[in-house]
Amino acid sequence: MMAKVGLVMGSKSDYERVQVCEQILKDFGVEVETRIISAHRTPKIAEEFSQNAEKNGIEVIIAAAGKAAHLGGVIAGNTALPVIGLPMKTSLQGGMDSLLSIVQMPKGVPVATVGVDAVQNAGLLAIQMLSIKYPELREKMISYKKKMEEEVIALDKEIQR
Amino acid sequence: MMAKVGLVMGSKSDYERVQVCEQILKDFGVEVETRIISAHRTPKIAEEFSQNAEKNGIEVIIAAAGKAAHLGGVIAGNTALPVIGLPMKTSLQGGMDSLLSIVQMPKGVPVATVGVDAVQNAGLLAIQMLSIKYPELREKMISYKKKMEEEVIALDKEIQR
Amino acid sequence: MMAKVGLVMGSKSDYERVQVCEQILKDFGVEVETRIISAHRTPKIAEEFSQNAEKNGIEVIIAAAGKAAHLGGVIAGNTALPVIGLPMKTSLQGGMDSLLSIVQMPKGVPVATVGVDAVQNAGLLAIQMLSIKYPELREKMISYKKKMEEEVIALDKEIQR
Amino acid sequence: MMAKVGLVMGSKSDYERVQVCEQILKDFGVEVETRIISAHRTPKIAEEFSQNAEKNGIEVIIAAAGKAAHLGGVIAGNTALPVIGLPMKTSLQGGMDSLLSIVQMPKGVPVATVGVDAVQNAGLLAIQMLSIKYPELREKMISYKKKMEEEVIALDKEIQR
Amino acid sequence: MMAKVGLVMGSKSDYERVQVCEQILKDFGVEVETRIISAHRTPKIAEEFSQNAEKNGIEVIIAAAGKAAHLGGVIAGNTALPVIGLPMKTSLQGGMDSLLSIVQMPKGVPVATVGVDAVQNAGLLAIQMLSIKYPELREKMISYKKKMEEEVIALDKEIQR
Amino acid sequence: MMAKVGLVMGSKSDYERVQVCEQILKDFGVEVETRIISAHRTPKIAEEFSQNAEKNGIEVIIAAAGKAAHLGGVIAGNTALPVIGLPMKTSLQGGMDSLLSIVQMPKGVPVATVGVDAVQNAGLLAIQMLSIKYPELREKMISYKKKMEEEVIALDKEIQR
Amino acid sequence: MMAKVGLVMGSKSDYERVQVCEQILKDFGVEVETRIISAHRTPKIAEEFSQNAEKNGIEVIIAAAGKAAHLGGVIAGNTALPVIGLPMKTSLQGGMDSLLSIVQMPKGVPVATVGVDAVQNAGLLAIQMLSIKYPELREKMISYKKKMEEEVIALDKEIQR
Amino acid sequence: MMAKVGLVMGSKSDYERVQVCEQILKDFGVEVETRIISAHRTPKIAEEFSQNAEKNGIEVIIAAAGKAAHLGGVIAGNTALPVIGLPMKTSLQGGMDSLLSIVQMPKGVPVATVGVDAVQNAGLLAIQMLSIKYPELREKMISYKKKMEEEVIALDKEIQR
Repeated sequence: MMAKVGLVMGSKSDYERVQVCEQILKDFGVEVETRIISAHRTPKIAEEFSQNAEKNGIEVIIAAAGKAAHLGGVIAGNTALPVIGLPMKTSLQGGMDSLLSIVQMPKGVPVATVGVDAVQNAGLLAIQMLSIKYPELREKMISYKKKMEEEVIALDKEIQR
Repeated sequence: MMAKVGLVMGSKSDYERVQVCEQILKDFGVEVETRIISAHRTPKIAEEFSQNAEKNGIEVIIAAAGKAAHLGGVIAGNTALPVIGLPMKTSLQGGMDSLLSIVQMPKGVPVATVGVDAVQNAGLLAIQMLSIKYPELREKMISYKKKMEEEVIALDKEIQR
Repeated sequence: MMAKVGLVMGSKSDYERVQVCEQILKDFGVEVETRIISAHRTPKIAEEFSQNAEKNGIEVIIAAAGKAAHLGGVIAGNTALPVIGLPMKTSLQGGMDSLLSIVQMPKGVPVATVGVDAVQNAGLLAIQMLSIKYPELREKMISYKKKMEEEVIALDKEIQR
Repeated sequence: MMAKVGLVMGSKSDYERVQVCEQILKDFGVEVETRIISAHRTPKIAEEFSQNAEKNGIEVIIAAAGKAAHLGGVIAGNTALPVIGLPMKTSLQGGMDSLLSIVQMPKGVPVATVGVDAVQNAGLLAIQMLSIKYPELREKMISYKKKMEEEVIALDKEIQR
Repeated sequence: MMAKVGLVMGSKSDYERVQVCEQILKDFGVEVETRIISAHRTPKIAEEFSQNAEKNGIEVIIAAAGKAAHLGGVIAGNTALPVIGLPMKTSLQGGMDSLLSIVQMPKGVPVATVGVDAVQNAGLLAIQMLSIKYPELREKMISYKKKMEEEVIALDKEIQR
Repeated sequence: MMAKVGLVMGSKSDYERVQVCEQILKDFGVEVETRIISAHRTPKIAEEFSQNAEKNGIEVIIAAAGKAAHLGGVIAGNTALPVIGLPMKTSLQGGMDSLLSIVQMPKGVPVATVGVDAVQNAGLLAIQMLSIKYPELREKMISYKKKMEEEVIALDKEIQR
Repeated sequence: MMAKVGLVMGSKSDYERVQVCEQILKDFGVEVETRIISAHRTPKIAEEFSQNAEKNGIEVIIAAAGKAAHLGGVIAGNTALPVIGLPMKTSLQGGMDSLLSIVQMPKGVPVATVGVDAVQNAGLLAIQMLSIKYPELREKMISYKKKMEEEVIALDKEIQR
Repeated sequence: MMAKVGLVMGSKSDYERVQVCEQILKDFGVEVETRIISAHRTPKIAEEFSQNAEKNGIEVIIAAAGKAAHLGGVIAGNTALPVIGLPMKTSLQGGMDSLLSIVQMPKGVPVATVGVDAVQNAGLLAIQMLSIKYPELREKMISYKKKMEEEVIALDKEIQR
């Protein structure tokens, strides 16, 4: 059976950046359900999506949102699945509003936060979580890390010439 | 008929501070329904409270919360009533996390934000909103401002002696 | 009788952004009196405007200003009407100066603050306040929220194809 | 077989706070290996711990550190396991240094960050990750959320009396 | 004729700190008119004070205020006299709200800002301004600087023993 | 005799912005000595300039500098004249480094700080200081304020049409 | 024998900026070993490089990195050589994340931090450290400072014409 | 011949904290000349101290200062010796003013900055710089790091029992 991630963004304007995250998940062979759901404009859908996620085979949820970014927290309040919060860049201190709205979740309801606009890392973190259960994802993650290492080594050699 | 405010806080630990707000509303003769509702720990109650608020006679909602303070935004997503957000003080930059999580609401769903820990102002703002409809509250607000003015004048005189 | 909002900005340079706010109010059928009044360069006019606002049929005032943005506070000191503060974006931390100058109002004189450059939300908050008195605005607000919901649902469907 | 978490802190001074995290994990029946390992003072041990963690049965690592908090990142560089970063409170802006040093990890090496001093949430996030594999932890997490909900409801009732 | 400073504070709670400023001015032989005037609670008095200040012999105004500290700006909008803004310490980032509300004055209406809670420096800056006209204040200022220098030299010697 | 201001900048790159300040001073009929002096690269010249400023007829000094902006403080340490600090915009939080390096001067040595990049206000503040002594500058300042007022009124009328 | 600096950057994207630093070192006649080494993607190489640096004749290490910039700290944990940390500019508050991740090193393992993007100063600081041992570098540094002084003086003269 | 450090603080109030730094230097067998010198109150002494430091056998200077902390920069402008800046804690954002005033030095005049209140690290960085010339200090530094490692290992063992 295939691992599955729910990838939710709060606004269509985030789609271009979020696709990088979607692609990484697919490259690792993870099934992705990509959605536009707003915590504030479609609260019922946010609730239903979260409550049905486990039943629908989703094992990790990634929530991308900006400004007063409540999406991750709202989802985390409605599911026991692990939720990754991806704060999008804004013009207020470069996205400090998004970051604090996501990472500072109150006691009892964590959201696993990655860096501002860290679309790759959101995907990789989901894969690392899934690899607790799926040994083949662990293997792929180890290979991915090996490949990153080799790329840096190659650049290092290039620069020394 | 009496004006009515829903005063919601995210955590019992905010109660002592929030009571100052409750008292101001009562002093102005406004009915207050005070509740502890968590956007993340009791999301269904938050939803029901918000959706039924208008039907229950509530005309303005005040939501007090700290850290990644989503309560005001979640309520505002579920009602057309005006929502006042009251950011509570925290140890991260004195409450900048609470403030940004409340004030930076995305397009379409405003939350009327007051200062960090500004329990009095949250109550007074609710009264100002209600006074659009209730002329007697406008009169009381004008008296309140007059009284504040006189207090400052008295202190000013005292200090000049 | 028609609901009426006073929409004041501190500088002509804010006009382009503020027009979005004006348009939303007009779309809801609210009468708007748009003004350029500076708290510091035309203090007397700011005082007169605020003191006469109620008499002139204004029920909510929106004050847009940037940097050390005193306009909202100065107006709120001279009227019992509810005042909405709209902090404009600046180059200092993306407008943190405007935001803090507006939201951190001292005890007794609240300004209902929306996000930095949140021109739409300033207008919508005014409508929500007015809808306490005007049931037809409440109806329109509910429709507006419904329409936003449908737009997000449409985008969500589009992305899933 | 029992789920196992590696709980590492950078300094003995964090121990009192971190024990809350340890206790939550134990309450859920998760085995915990608690360690004091410094990224800067015992770099070799940090490296060995990380590289051997998977082999030693650890499935998630929690790294608690303050100031220029490199511990989580250093561990994440040496293992493919998911790493949770727990930023400890400091006197610089309440721990903004710890938070940014952990959450802003560069591309390729995520650290799942929780709020400043969020010792409970670090533990709960580990449990949510583990519950991808361990259905009994998912069940316990659902119960935990249910219990939190009931506690808030009880407080809400109490306050309404 | 004696030099005269208007020393205004927005709230009685600032009085203890502001007295340090008052004392320095008196030590230099400057006449001080100390007042409690609120930009928001007593706007008319703020206006009248500012407009009559020059006529009343005041040559420099010091305005101490905290949070959304509009007092200095409001005074500066109503007089051509130089205005010194003294931001008082708050719990939001140690007074960053007070500082930005004062120093970031828009084009055309400057407020000469000193550091947060810098009560001594507010007084000394007033004296330096007055010493443009009053040579005896320049002499006293030179002596004051000489005395500070000698105190540091004495402490330096003490520490070297 | 003519009023005279020393206008010092720390780097040639600030010249374009600082010229706006120079022009305002000249428009008011104030003599300006414009200099490039670095607190760190030409410390001796900074010292000599400051110590001789009064003797050379300078009555107010404006110091424009960015980043760790020590110029104003260094000058203020070497003269009893009033010193205006003008923090230049930088890429770190929009110039927060420049602002804090100037405004937070320690006890005993104030620097009168204006907003980040506030070139006009630096000039106007100098004029307000000088107008303590020079009644003709006070008159011009009152006219300048009158003109600003009229400009805002004209824009306000234009927008209402 | 020639002085030698290890100049390490965390990512190829920093190379263009870092070359300015490399050039300054070469202009002073210092040998430079420039490397791309990632604290997180090539942790083993980072460790080996640091542990062998002294043996390889390196006397000072400069580490340039951005975001959660752990490179300097990781190197400092593996060598007794002095390490200079060069925080690279980012979009989060202009690089505040890089700066805090480098400068706030815990007790026992300092990293000598220069300003954000301060590529020249990183090189000059290395030269100042080396000049403790190499008198010819001290002489060159004194000449360099003399030349900077003359350049400022020339610009100052130019502007006064 | 013995290595020698000049340890300068801007105010007597920093002495208690700075003594920790002094003690570390003495523990390593480094001669320390401890001074109270203010960049703003005793500028001439700051200049003379810096210009004569090399001649007086000083090889590294440590400058501890708070708020608008110009001491390190002023010294660095007057000597070619390496200067370490030690930002002292303040109530404004926990010392962000001190940090930015020191680390953001303009091009050409670096100050090697350590963390806020990092008194130990300032001393250790001086020793690392000196150890470029003095092999015995390098040896002691390696032992110091070894000892720190052993202490952490002991604590780690203790906690595992």
